[in-house]
Amino acid sequence: MAVYTEVSDDALRAFLAEYDVGDLVAYRGIAEGVENSNYSLKTAAGDYILTLYEKRVDPAELPWFLGLMQHLAHRGIVCPLPVAGRDGAALRVLAGRHAAITTFLPGVWPRRVGQEHCAPLGTALAALHRAGEDYAPVRANALGPQSWAPLLTRSLADGGAAADKVQPGLAAELQNAVETIVASWPTGLPRGHIHADLFPDNVFFLDGKLSGLIDFYFAATDIWAYDIAVCLNAWCFESDLTFNVTKARALLHAYGAVRPLSDAEMAALPVLCQGAAIRFALTRLFDWINTPAGALVTRKNPMEYVRRLRFHLSATGAHAYGV
Amino acid sequence: MAVYTEVSDDALRAFLAEYDVGDLVAYRGIAEGVENSNYSLKTAAGDYILTLYEKRVDPAELPWFLGLMQHLAHRGIVCPLPVAGRDGAALRVLAGRHAAITTFLPGVWPRRVGQEHCAPLGTALAALHRAGEDYAPVRANALGPQSWAPLLTRSLADGGAAADKVQPGLAAELQNAVETIVASWPTGLPRGHIHADLFPDNVFFLDGKLSGLIDFYFAATDIWAYDIAVCLNAWCFESDLTFNVTKARALLHAYGAVRPLSDAEMAALPVLCQGAAIRFALTRLFDWINTPAGALVTRKNPMEYVRRLRFHLSATGAHAYGV
Repeated sequence: MAVYTEVSDDALRAFLAEYDVGDLVAYRGIAEGVENSNYSLKTAAGDYILTLYEKRVDPAELPWFLGLMQHLAHRGIVCPLPVAGRDGAALRVLAGRHAAITTFLPGVWPRRVGQEHCAPLGTALAALHRAGEDYAPVRANALGPQSWAPLLTRSLADGGAAADKVQPGLAAELQNAVETIVASWPTGLPRGHIHADLFPDNVFFLDGKLSGLIDFYFAATDIWAYDIAVCLNAWCFESDLTFNVTKARALLHAYGAVRPLSDAEMAALPVLCQGAAIRFALTRLFDWINTPAGALVTRKNPMEYVRRLRFHLSATGAHAYGV
Repeated sequence: MAVYTEVSDDALRAFLAEYDVGDLVAYRGIAEGVENSNYSLKTAAGDYILTLYEKRVDPAELPWFLGLMQHLAHRGIVCPLPVAGRDGAALRVLAGRHAAITTFLPGVWPRRVGQEHCAPLGTALAALHRAGEDYAPVRANALGPQSWAPLLTRSLADGGAAADKVQPGLAAELQNAVETIVASWPTGLPRGHIHADLFPDNVFFLDGKLSGLIDFYFAATDIWAYDIAVCLNAWCFESDLTFNVTKARALLHAYGAVRPLSDAEMAALPVLCQGAAIRFALTRLFDWINTPAGALVTRKNPMEYVRRLRFHLSATGAHAYGV
């Protein structure tokens, strides 16, 4: 549930006066989302999303994120388009937070992923990568391989007791995995801007078709195929954490039809998937250990990604993913 | 923040197939609200609110609430209108909860109450009372005077230790107040259907005019002027808990222009306001004591209503409220 900054109607009206979107008609806080506060906003001109950036987002990076969304939208990717105020600025301040208005995207994210979602996802991901090619600014991936050992160290500051309370032996298992994965991390693979968090709740469908991609606030410049690995983790495991190779094959084939994967990218799929799994296992473990009991957020169990990680560690090649 | 039942897109599509509202376009959980789960829902036909009734609402009473809203809407009160399915039923089941779709009301509730809000509020409240006159079914007020002593007893089950932890002496202060207020509770005052929870977040304004009333799930058949007393408590105290008599006068005059208050109603204002203050003090105290630390709801401090109660106990007549 959302971290939640309360916005007064007076403050919002003053904020909207800087835009050409007409008068305020309604606004309601959105319950989904963890990182930022989101409001659905209706004005005389239509529906929008108002986002207030909470403390996990570095304000200095907001222009990069908004610029990427603007660039992608102009290249035909259906994603939230930042709305500029009359002075041309899309990034402003509201209720003590950096804030932006973006266009509203119709569509519904799939609560239960089916095989039919995976090919459109692969197509959209490849199109996203292609569309980002001529967006010049770069952003290092703050949650890339170089971040994993330090992040794990912070979670094991108590000698691993908290981690081992999640599951006995977890501290040692994660330490070994980080070492192994970072040591075999591929170099020289094609790079560009990646979404880096393309989970089902960030992908909308409408009438059976993919209708939009949202939430670009983990986007970064990194290995393209790593973005595929994030999706294989997030979309291709069943609720019992068995791997659905049919979904994976659909995703990979559809992606490859837009941007063919090289042999090196194919060969790297297992380690990239291991990396994606440990990235989410590590942030979830950190949040699990450090979220106060009374916090207004739901903690996610890190073991769901530790179990995915084990699957990928057992994969000996791209064939494990159906290709 | 809302108690929150997750609804899958598949389940929602199946649910919507029972209605003539066209295909699903988008839905998002609404962060506001405590008692029920609310979604903003967009279909090909427009905007709606989807409500899932959580456990505090007695399913047997839902037809009364929905019937009242339907009745009031047809009498010209702008309130959510329950939308019937093709079979004529407005009350259905979704995700294991009783659920209903209502119309979307444009407007924004005032985060900071100004004097200009209070006259429209009084007018709307009196109109609501008048419009409800020919809605025949009755509902006893489950949070009326007869409920206060038992509710307090449950909060003092530990001998008053938890209450006295909120503020030393609170247990005895509330026991005395309940006895005094119930003993002097007025009889014979005009009755009808009341909203009983008309706080600022349940009243929408648009372009400076009151545009709608929402959340009728505490409505009951009780003393009309008690509804005014709830509003005097909720709208006419400043954030430092001083009483703003100018706001009260605006509210009472506007109300009286639509439904004139009798001398008996005027004379009863202090005790009715005491009753309204203790009703909210008691439910907040109960929730304060019984809300587990990890719960996804924000507890409200009961002292805000204890301090209002003290003001009303010092009031010697209607003149304290500006009339």
